[in-house]
Amino acid sequence: MKGLTEVTVLRLGHRPRRDKRLTTHVCLTARAFGARRILLDAPDKTIVSTVEDVTERFGGPFDIEVREAWRKVIADHPGPSMHLTMYGQPHTEVVAELDSPEELLIVLGAEKVPREVYDLATYNVSVGNQPHSEVAALAAVMLEVLGPGPLTQKRTGAELRIEPSKRGKQVESAD
Amino acid sequence: MKGLTEVTVLRLGHRPRRDKRLTTHVCLTARAFGARRILLDAPDKTIVSTVEDVTERFGGPFDIEVREAWRKVIADHPGPSMHLTMYGQPHTEVVAELDSPEELLIVLGAEKVPREVYDLATYNVSVGNQPHSEVAALAAVMLEVLGPGPLTQKRTGAELRIEPSKRGKQVESAD
Repeated sequence: MKGLTEVTVLRLGHRPRRDKRLTTHVCLTARAFGARRILLDAPDKTIVSTVEDVTERFGGPFDIEVREAWRKVIADHPGPSMHLTMYGQPHTEVVAELDSPEELLIVLGAEKVPREVYDLATYNVSVGNQPHSEVAALAAVMLEVLGPGPLTQKRTGAELRIEPSKRGKQVESAD
Repeated sequence: MKGLTEVTVLRLGHRPRRDKRLTTHVCLTARAFGARRILLDAPDKTIVSTVEDVTERFGGPFDIEVREAWRKVIADHPGPSMHLTMYGQPHTEVVAELDSPEELLIVLGAEKVPREVYDLATYNVSVGNQPHSEVAALAAVMLEVLGPGPLTQKRTGAELRIEPSKRGKQVESAD
């Protein structure tokens, strides 16, 4: 179940004042680990512009969109949806059961998530039944679904490219 | 190189006012993915107490300590050290090269990291040469070093245990 799936991430419960940095980490993790787009349930111009700026400099394709009608996003999604929660079923088992869906929706909340999300999602999925971080959980699930390939894949339209380096920083123009 | 390593995580550049939530995510990710301890380079009673509370409820062993002399922590570490940075060498390649060290130190910074860290660390390691999140990078490296085993391993001295559930929340006492 690696490499064939288009992943959309939905970030729920984003509070622009309180969650700006964590949601930014969620967005950039989604992009770096190979998601096609991220949807936020609350408008936040700062985050949209930060993420679009990273995509412009380091390449795409990756979209960020605000979708306040998040129930409809989950209900209308054409493929399976996975809600990440410490209470769910092991991510390795759930991902192994998927038949290479063309479109996977990964749903992750900020702090408390409305109870209905547990019912709306196709799967409730945990990355270990321990309290940790939605950023770490997203990374682990993306790795399980897509493998490490997207992390080092060439991006389209990048202005910059970082060359792996033993010591120091090597940034090149991406022509 | 899976399962034999004791991992210590060192969090650099922690600013108690600005980084409280992200550093908390780093600490809990370290614990959930199987590190033995986390070291902070700045005192922060709130985080220490949050992390100790999680370990008391969900089990250990996991320690959190403040070590302001972080240069000494890196220099004196008895095993190899890996500094996580978007500029480094691919994490899959570096981990594959390690010979099951008994003690691995993973170093991760908040925002800018002093140049000397690049020289002090045995390896500078990237999880994709893209901007994302130290929380996601830590999760990916921990998975590469220890595999997913620690995520579902039984913890010692836990008061609570979460049972994986298809819908909803199942919390049990951990006798």
